[in-house]
Amino acid sequence: MALGQTNPIVGDLEGNAARIVDVARRAHDAGADLLAVGEMALSGYPIEDLAARPSFLRESAEAVDALAARLHEEGLGELVVVVGHPDGPFEPRLTSSNASPSAIAQNRASVIHRGRVLAKYSKHHLPNYSVFDEYRIFIPGDELMVLRLRGADVALIICEDLWRDGGPVARVLESDASVLLVINASPYERDKDEVRVPLVTRRALESDTTVAYVNIVGGQDDLVFDGDSVVVDGKGEILARAPQYDEHLLLVDLDPPATADHPVPDYVRRVVIDLGEAPEREPLPADIAELPDDRAQLWGALVTGLRDYVEKNGFRSVALGLSGGIDSAVCAAIAADAIGADRVYGVSMPSRWSSDHSRSDADDLAERIGVHYRTEAIADLVQPVEDQLQLTGLAAENLQARIRGIILMGLSNLDGHLVLTTGNKTEVAVGYSTIYGDSVGGYAPIKDVPKTLVWELARWRNEHAAARGETPPIPENSISKPPSAELREGQTDQDSLPDYAVLDEIVEAYVTRKLGREDLIAAGFDAEVVHDVVKLIDRSEWKRRQSAIGPKVSGMAFGRDRRLPITYKD
Amino acid sequence: MALGQTNPIVGDLEGNAARIVDVARRAHDAGADLLAVGEMALSGYPIEDLAARPSFLRESAEAVDALAARLHEEGLGELVVVVGHPDGPFEPRLTSSNASPSAIAQNRASVIHRGRVLAKYSKHHLPNYSVFDEYRIFIPGDELMVLRLRGADVALIICEDLWRDGGPVARVLESDASVLLVINASPYERDKDEVRVPLVTRRALESDTTVAYVNIVGGQDDLVFDGDSVVVDGKGEILARAPQYDEHLLLVDLDPPATADHPVPDYVRRVVIDLGEAPEREPLPADIAELPDDRAQLWGALVTGLRDYVEKNGFRSVALGLSGGIDSAVCAAIAADAIGADRVYGVSMPSRWSSDHSRSDADDLAERIGVHYRTEAIADLVQPVEDQLQLTGLAAENLQARIRGIILMGLSNLDGHLVLTTGNKTEVAVGYSTIYGDSVGGYAPIKDVPKTLVWELARWRNEHAAARGETPPIPENSISKPPSAELREGQTDQDSLPDYAVLDEIVEAYVTRKLGREDLIAAGFDAEVVHDVVKLIDRSEWKRRQSAIGPKVSGMAFGRDRRLPITYKD
Repeated sequence: MALGQTNPIVGDLEGNAARIVDVARRAHDAGADLLAVGEMALSGYPIEDLAARPSFLRESAEAVDALAARLHEEGLGELVVVVGHPDGPFEPRLTSSNASPSAIAQNRASVIHRGRVLAKYSKHHLPNYSVFDEYRIFIPGDELMVLRLRGADVALIICEDLWRDGGPVARVLESDASVLLVINASPYERDKDEVRVPLVTRRALESDTTVAYVNIVGGQDDLVFDGDSVVVDGKGEILARAPQYDEHLLLVDLDPPATADHPVPDYVRRVVIDLGEAPEREPLPADIAELPDDRAQLWGALVTGLRDYVEKNGFRSVALGLSGGIDSAVCAAIAADAIGADRVYGVSMPSRWSSDHSRSDADDLAERIGVHYRTEAIADLVQPVEDQLQLTGLAAENLQARIRGIILMGLSNLDGHLVLTTGNKTEVAVGYSTIYGDSVGGYAPIKDVPKTLVWELARWRNEHAAARGETPPIPENSISKPPSAELREGQTDQDSLPDYAVLDEIVEAYVTRKLGREDLIAAGFDAEVVHDVVKLIDRSEWKRRQSAIGPKVSGMAFGRDRRLPITYKD
Repeated sequence: MALGQTNPIVGDLEGNAARIVDVARRAHDAGADLLAVGEMALSGYPIEDLAARPSFLRESAEAVDALAARLHEEGLGELVVVVGHPDGPFEPRLTSSNASPSAIAQNRASVIHRGRVLAKYSKHHLPNYSVFDEYRIFIPGDELMVLRLRGADVALIICEDLWRDGGPVARVLESDASVLLVINASPYERDKDEVRVPLVTRRALESDTTVAYVNIVGGQDDLVFDGDSVVVDGKGEILARAPQYDEHLLLVDLDPPATADHPVPDYVRRVVIDLGEAPEREPLPADIAELPDDRAQLWGALVTGLRDYVEKNGFRSVALGLSGGIDSAVCAAIAADAIGADRVYGVSMPSRWSSDHSRSDADDLAERIGVHYRTEAIADLVQPVEDQLQLTGLAAENLQARIRGIILMGLSNLDGHLVLTTGNKTEVAVGYSTIYGDSVGGYAPIKDVPKTLVWELARWRNEHAAARGETPPIPENSISKPPSAELREGQTDQDSLPDYAVLDEIVEAYVTRKLGREDLIAAGFDAEVVHDVVKLIDRSEWKRRQSAIGPKVSGMAFGRDRRLPITYKD
């Protein structure tokens, strides 16, 4: 068996199909009988509002047939290929009392053999929490399926189906399948490796069945899929495991015991596939990748997210302001790791309040990493606006940040850079930034990373470089100096904010774990600090409210945030 | 019976309760026995991620009890009050195979009498399409309920429950209720009055039952609730109807026939309420509001949306650029209608390319409406940036728009204005704007209004003024002149865009109705124009991709767009 961990681009049906043909050829050449690629590997994930476009669904369905034909033409027809894709358009169908009345698509796995699509399985459980919106856009399936291959039954399900206790897993395994094949689009989450593989292992042990789990990889908009495809046998042993983030063909020789030739329950459809005689061949060489430590995994996710946002949206380069501080230094290092330093353009934009070290630390960083680097002093650009509008206080501080935003966008318009905005999660949470100022940019590499973790990642990245005999990218002084926005004389972050160690804990508890103010105080946080921080967070929400929404009134509103991926040409 | 059409603020439990006590007093004084207010009238709608905060759910539940106690204390305890609110936290519960595993809230209607909460109904059907995300955040209910009041049964359901054929309506009406009471949070959509009241009428006719439908009113973020509460009898006659957009107490004397004293089906809970003897009193004076025409309804929605965004978020005033063009003129007129001209600050920001008429038309507009008005020429602010960065072409054009954005944000920071961004739907769709330039602003009053409809609304508003002997607010020249961004010599919109009449039709078909390119050509649009427009739309999506997202990677991401309403203090 082969699991193809591909990196699809949402909407790029043709390119994604080419990726699948490529892994199919490699799987075939290695002697595999069955190849599975991830959930929606043909369309990319998540397709969001594309699921509401009949033309896209028709093209997706046609792309499956075209893939089947092409595999056959290229001599790969004997390989059984299981591929995930959207299908439709179907009549809206209220399969349960609460299904979305406007959904016209299904989330499917097609089974391809000898140039034909033999069967299609539709995902039962449509996640509708966290980053998922599937219940909104898909019609749930209600059929179960096993594939019969040389006397062994392989049960087929999709992603969330595996997670539900008492769901399709339990029912399909009553058919005594030898292998449970799960195709997935499962994003990276911190510490998810402590949940996902244990779940796969538990399902394998519960059912005494080998579970083959294939995931996609790569960044898509704000999601990062980490791969980590895995095969676990019925004793809970990991037989094969793919690395994170990289495209990979994972091979494993299962040689499952033939399933007894019993009838399957009547609610399970058995698809018999004629594979012919098993060929004589070398055993497939299974490999078991080791997961790196927590910080390396996180760094990998940040690098992958940025790389694929740049590549999939067709940007040649990125630009960012280098302030000498830790956030921009870490963002620059991520960018260089993602797309190479020669595609990264750093801009130092000192003001009258900028310290000497802010310039020297930025210079040092640029030299260490080797990015393109220029200096654009802002004093002469700020002054005319400040004078004409008579801006003072906060309005004058924000003006400096906004002139910097204008400089970066001007350079972006001239040279096509994607601008990076370097705010960290803590800053975003408490609104310690200027709207249309330092928040300007198309991609925010560390927007979900709390400040204390930014420092930790910087230290880790430097140690990692040192251990490999490379120049540590982040200047030591950027890590050790007290953080400052430098928008007025002698300013430091701690003039306005509690210590970051405390602040990060409160943000984590209040924003992420959704504890209330009273819960926080009961948990031992100082009451005054809690009130101050919650007030900052509420205030930041008020600031965000100055950043453009409008009334949905015409019965003609756009869809949601992600309307059309640029790679899909309707 | 009384229906209280209130305007709640999301998160403002105390203020919303005060609004309900106020209508309860008026209903009581008028002699009503039963008052119903809208879905989530106690919490505001939509609560989005607040539904995931246990502390908010606890406070909401406590607020219902506090409301019951307060009504009793104020001598209103004999009035039966039905009020919508969120409830919880509950253990996540997979009531159907596809419920969201993280939902801990229910969408409920509580029945209050004599200081106590007698019963709670939980909404069955949770809409999860268009602007709705309920399936994500609520646990669906599965019980049905009728209230027995002086021998008549009143069946109680919530909003979407009414829309589903074969849903709770059909089942609860098998109990032979005399009245079907539906509480709602149903937003304005263009032409919705052609759907909603006909639906209510159809349900009334189908079941030969009086249907009482109560909606909330007001703007909340990007939604506008239009009220239009209505009572329709079993013959399909409208007995009473509330006006759009305004808070209103709708009274109606139903005097329903006593329901036969039969047992209800065992799946329906009957709540018997002791109302005592019917008092002698004058019949309640039902009124039937007339709906104004389509354009007046739309104008009302735009005005309401802006007004409540300003008021509910605590802004004192709004600022906007006045270019002399039609979009900014219409936005200024909406703003003046919404909050009064003395809270509107117009800024003319001419550049070297601005025509004489752009200044004189802006002057004329400001004088007609009576808004505050100042001129800030941008040439001396643009030049230093253009020179220092050597910006040319598009980069130089965008710079002008961005300097204007900086001016408006500077004035906002000085004086606390909410900045309005004046782009229309057509512009947004095809990306005919500058990111961080004219798109700067906290509220976009006409972002869903296509260009041709902007002109139509301008003409309508002027005629409306003339008919009332008032000064038409929009200068005739702003309506009749060819539109231009004036970012370079002699530029007009039609240099880059097809005629707006054609463009709007294609945008409507492609973006809103989701037709594909081939469908459009088959429908008779010129193939070349279709390709050009679709290319512009795809390109605009690419531009939007330069406006800040970042990787959700830490397992610590924020919630969705609307995280915390500023009015809720946790």
